[in-house]
Amino acid sequence: MTSPINRFFSVIPAGGIGSRLWPLSRASQPKFLHDLTGSGQTLLEDTWDRLRGLSSADRIMVVTGNVHETAVMQQLEDLDPKNLVLEKSPKDSTAAIALAAAILEKREPGVIIGSFAADHVIVETAAFHRVVREAVEVAATGKIVTIGIEPTEPSVGFGYIKMGEPIEGAPTAKSVLKFVEKPNIEKAKRYVESGNYLWNAGMFIAPAALLLEQLAKSEPELHAAILEIAEAWDGPQRNAVIEKIWGNLKKVAIDYSVAEPAAAAGLVACVPGNFTWHDVGDFAAIAELQSQGRSGNLAVLGDAKVLADHTSGILVSESNRLVALIGLQDIIVVDTPDALLVTTKEHAQRVKSLVDALKATGHSDLL
Amino acid sequence: MTSPINRFFSVIPAGGIGSRLWPLSRASQPKFLHDLTGSGQTLLEDTWDRLRGLSSADRIMVVTGNVHETAVMQQLEDLDPKNLVLEKSPKDSTAAIALAAAILEKREPGVIIGSFAADHVIVETAAFHRVVREAVEVAATGKIVTIGIEPTEPSVGFGYIKMGEPIEGAPTAKSVLKFVEKPNIEKAKRYVESGNYLWNAGMFIAPAALLLEQLAKSEPELHAAILEIAEAWDGPQRNAVIEKIWGNLKKVAIDYSVAEPAAAAGLVACVPGNFTWHDVGDFAAIAELQSQGRSGNLAVLGDAKVLADHTSGILVSESNRLVALIGLQDIIVVDTPDALLVTTKEHAQRVKSLVDALKATGHSDLL
Repeated sequence: MTSPINRFFSVIPAGGIGSRLWPLSRASQPKFLHDLTGSGQTLLEDTWDRLRGLSSADRIMVVTGNVHETAVMQQLEDLDPKNLVLEKSPKDSTAAIALAAAILEKREPGVIIGSFAADHVIVETAAFHRVVREAVEVAATGKIVTIGIEPTEPSVGFGYIKMGEPIEGAPTAKSVLKFVEKPNIEKAKRYVESGNYLWNAGMFIAPAALLLEQLAKSEPELHAAILEIAEAWDGPQRNAVIEKIWGNLKKVAIDYSVAEPAAAAGLVACVPGNFTWHDVGDFAAIAELQSQGRSGNLAVLGDAKVLADHTSGILVSESNRLVALIGLQDIIVVDTPDALLVTTKEHAQRVKSLVDALKATGHSDLL
Repeated sequence: MTSPINRFFSVIPAGGIGSRLWPLSRASQPKFLHDLTGSGQTLLEDTWDRLRGLSSADRIMVVTGNVHETAVMQQLEDLDPKNLVLEKSPKDSTAAIALAAAILEKREPGVIIGSFAADHVIVETAAFHRVVREAVEVAATGKIVTIGIEPTEPSVGFGYIKMGEPIEGAPTAKSVLKFVEKPNIEKAKRYVESGNYLWNAGMFIAPAALLLEQLAKSEPELHAAILEIAEAWDGPQRNAVIEKIWGNLKKVAIDYSVAEPAAAAGLVACVPGNFTWHDVGDFAAIAELQSQGRSGNLAVLGDAKVLADHTSGILVSESNRLVALIGLQDIIVVDTPDALLVTTKEHAQRVKSLVDALKATGHSDLL
């Protein structure tokens, strides 16, 4: 076997609409296809570039919905078409990651995969690379390794990872005792004060075979279906098998199907990520990210002509209109050609219920 | 001479962009061409209909800018084209009203004119008619008569009229001692408490000849120029005279050129207007008008699809977009195809300085 990092293959599951980012993020144009950081690149492009420091271009796989094929291939010029896995319909994270694992294990037995969401933001790339490299080394010893983020506040928006003992021979890795769901604020404070908990950022590094083995134990039917699809993937029967099987695939998050049972079995390790990470879950998070600690400013994403007077918050513009804002604090304005959202940072989470209301009132064309 | 009301002719000066109503109100589409009340008609159409209770359709004259000819003729089907006076360029209220007076006096010596802005809102039409009829009777005795609005609050947004003694034989009219400029809040409170002051709503009823006579005394050059234009108006030399003279017409408000000097000469009377009147000067005023005392609601002008959650204020929509508003109090959102304004009722007056900023930054195409 070659050294662990040479067996490493990056996987980018690019799914999730990001309802809290409506009307910017739509079913046809989800979060990962937008520049939410003002970097001049989309989150997907940023993710690709970040992973290129770990994997050559021919060792990065993207798993996404059929409808995003064109957009993804346009954005990622160096993506090898054979490493683009298109899903017939969304089936949650287990199907996406396990299918990638199964296809790659078949192509290259012994592969170690790392799964990194297409729509997260990481600020310090070098630190990220160091952490993933350590995770790959630990994974090679027969572990499913997650990267936990050192909490900067007692957030109730993330799940947490409870760490156990240091892993012998690893610089920073520890065993994982368990994963815990998003806590209430009191629990979150206790977690952060204890120093034993990290944010679960949903990054997993593991030998593909080990990940599939765990899935076989917890979800044998799903495992069998995924293997059947993977078996046919690189041959003439791919579409026929997908037509037959895809619709019945069980939707389940990989946290439940693999991470939690594996942790209970003592098979999960964790490398603490000492880098800045954001899941940019709502417009308040984007405003936060843009302001970088400077308050009282208006951040602008997009090419809007803007006149702002005594206004702070964020303007996201995808229209070509002049936007004039007067006397608004912590405002969120999202201006797209067919829909306009105005709210405040405080109410950013309520955008999701608005999207639900749109569904209920027959405005699915705007979702 | 026939009875005063039979000599009456209504004049509608339709000018003024309404900068505080940008981006709804534009140079090409000023305030009076918009429905700001939700009546289903524009302010100009509402004004016309209101005056039809006093004047037959052939006794209403409109004075407006050249560029609005098509819009005005489309909106006012019954306007006789010979009663449409088009201004080559804006020259303030004296030129507009005096030209109407001079044209009408030439056509019909002894005419009594009443001038009513095209962009004000009056709620109780019958009361308005009673008040104007009294004003016409008083005007026929050789007075310039203004209609003052009984103040409902110590507004600092209007000029005031100081009343003197009742006029003998008139039901409610009083002499006018003087006109005073927009006061500060302390003065405004004193004015309102005294009971001797009315808001100056800029409505004037007077024999055309008397109005012109006053103008001759205060602004002899302007008077002479207006008479020269009026003399040529209904003949073949109209355009030639306009070309020669119009550019040099002095810009002056009729309050300064006629009303104040005439008041000093004891020639002005006032009929108190006991009807609800609004000059709808900014979006806060429109919101106020829409809410009719009900607070906590979102008023909507236009055909927008709206989703509002815990939001109050006003949305004016001239675009076809969905507008979603969450958690905003006393908000003002004005959504037009090429410009978006978001502000609050508190800051509604600042829209004017924003328009000034647009001028300064070379965005005149949006004004």
